[in-house]
Amino acid sequence: MEFNKAVVAFNNYLKSYQEKELTGKLLEPVKYMLSLGGKRLRPTILVWINQLYKGEINEALNAALAIELFHNFSLVHDDIMDEAPLRRGKTTVHQKWDTNTAILSGDAMLILVYQALENVCPEHLGKSIKLLNKSALNVCKGQQLDMDFESERLINIDQYINMIGQKTGDLLGASFALGALLANAPESDVEKLYEFGKKTGIAFQIQDDILDLYGDKAKVGKQIGGDIIANKKTFLWIRAFEKADSQMLDKLEKMEAEKNPEIKVRLATGLFNSLGVKADAEYKKQKLQNEAMGLLNNLDLNNPDREQIAGFVLKLLSRED
Amino acid sequence: MEFNKAVVAFNNYLKSYQEKELTGKLLEPVKYMLSLGGKRLRPTILVWINQLYKGEINEALNAALAIELFHNFSLVHDDIMDEAPLRRGKTTVHQKWDTNTAILSGDAMLILVYQALENVCPEHLGKSIKLLNKSALNVCKGQQLDMDFESERLINIDQYINMIGQKTGDLLGASFALGALLANAPESDVEKLYEFGKKTGIAFQIQDDILDLYGDKAKVGKQIGGDIIANKKTFLWIRAFEKADSQMLDKLEKMEAEKNPEIKVRLATGLFNSLGVKADAEYKKQKLQNEAMGLLNNLDLNNPDREQIAGFVLKLLSRED
Repeated sequence: MEFNKAVVAFNNYLKSYQEKELTGKLLEPVKYMLSLGGKRLRPTILVWINQLYKGEINEALNAALAIELFHNFSLVHDDIMDEAPLRRGKTTVHQKWDTNTAILSGDAMLILVYQALENVCPEHLGKSIKLLNKSALNVCKGQQLDMDFESERLINIDQYINMIGQKTGDLLGASFALGALLANAPESDVEKLYEFGKKTGIAFQIQDDILDLYGDKAKVGKQIGGDIIANKKTFLWIRAFEKADSQMLDKLEKMEAEKNPEIKVRLATGLFNSLGVKADAEYKKQKLQNEAMGLLNNLDLNNPDREQIAGFVLKLLSRED
Repeated sequence: MEFNKAVVAFNNYLKSYQEKELTGKLLEPVKYMLSLGGKRLRPTILVWINQLYKGEINEALNAALAIELFHNFSLVHDDIMDEAPLRRGKTTVHQKWDTNTAILSGDAMLILVYQALENVCPEHLGKSIKLLNKSALNVCKGQQLDMDFESERLINIDQYINMIGQKTGDLLGASFALGALLANAPESDVEKLYEFGKKTGIAFQIQDDILDLYGDKAKVGKQIGGDIIANKKTFLWIRAFEKADSQMLDKLEKMEAEKNPEIKVRLATGLFNSLGVKADAEYKKQKLQNEAMGLLNNLDLNNPDREQIAGFVLKLLSRED
């Protein structure tokens, strides 16, 4: 099965789930959240990998739903914590309803994650839950670190990589790994695919950080330098503060305090360029990408399938939007 | 095994879990919440029932931990929603840390619920998760109704019973049922024990509502009429408004608006007495208790064990504190 067919299969499954299962007041915000769309990257990867390993698609669709529900649950609660007004251009749940409704419907969504796994066959159930739990707890740990970093003056790049690894890498790792696990892939493949997905997720986030400042506005489809304006601690930001001598640090701090968005973004671009942090980000991203690709070599798949996975990830990591 | 031995077994297990597993910043509030104590009624019931059905205690302890974690998770998030400053006489998690920490550590606690089930044997895992999910979703539905009721003028007793049935009855039902399920009890026993526990939970809550106003201050250990002072919609309150003619309704509304706590409690007591709502509450409680007892008759247990369960519940429902 090709990736594009997995997208269609999952979207059909999700549509029917939304219509049949998400009824009643408690689950209305869950339905709303899922209706906001998104790339459905994680569930599609799960189904696609599962089919490459010749798994049973109905079982994979259940687990894919669990992963998508978990991702959306974490967004609903993160949006409360970040006081975010918008998600995918639409009102966030806590803004459309209220904070209590967002807490409670998020809780219900997390229970639905495990309900989606009820139909996984007994042979796979225990391992699937174990894998998902580990990943889910890491997402929470990542969110904890992300909140902690907001009040810390200096973070180093290793701390940042560790944080995004947990916050975004682990769930992508779980998507790859669960797909293989449900298809009875060798345990070492399951482990390698987890690492592969995790590294891909970190590289993807670094790419995201680069595009915020160096992307093409028309392609990215949002304001250039949004992270800078919000003083967000991205790879570029953290690396700049890490590399700066005392003179550069003064300049960075002036940039940090600058109120005019245009001037601020121009200042940041100049400083980041002279510190060479874009190249550092690209180097780190490339390194993670190479490490990920290396993990594909010994998978129990034929060459065309391995190449399909490699090609997909290369495309994902070279995106410009 | 007697109930008291099950208490000791669970408390030892919980103590070791708290020390070994609850480390790191994310789980610190989880550890705090569990350290606040409580009667550990639900997990103890699970272990005790499991042992009456000759189950494997280690497996039951895992599931008991899951139930206790779920109960505490729901308290942490409910306390945010209710803006409660105290829980068991100690500062609530969102007050001791902050709301974001309480949301996130609550989320982590809900994942720990399912992590605790990882060690349930494959034969029981699917059924256990299904049972727990159903009960957990009902707890959320009950909390949703409870929040909805706050802004509704008139609720009838059936709506109230339905709400407390979900908010507090279902998890007690799950505790009884899971204990039996893990010991390979007949399916009909599992179902009957769920209903038994649910009815017991509702009766317990009605008892709680009665004690708030009619309890012995020295025994209850808190202010008499606390629910009245907070205009809380308890069984007594709802039944009074349900029964009142227009003249009594005027008096109830004056009582509702009364600011002086002592006068308010005195007014409420007088009105509730003339409307006979205490007797209504006692009648309903007794009815539920009888229905629950009826469910015990056909369980696959010997007479002394059935009597042990009946005796425990009678004691629970005749408590005065």
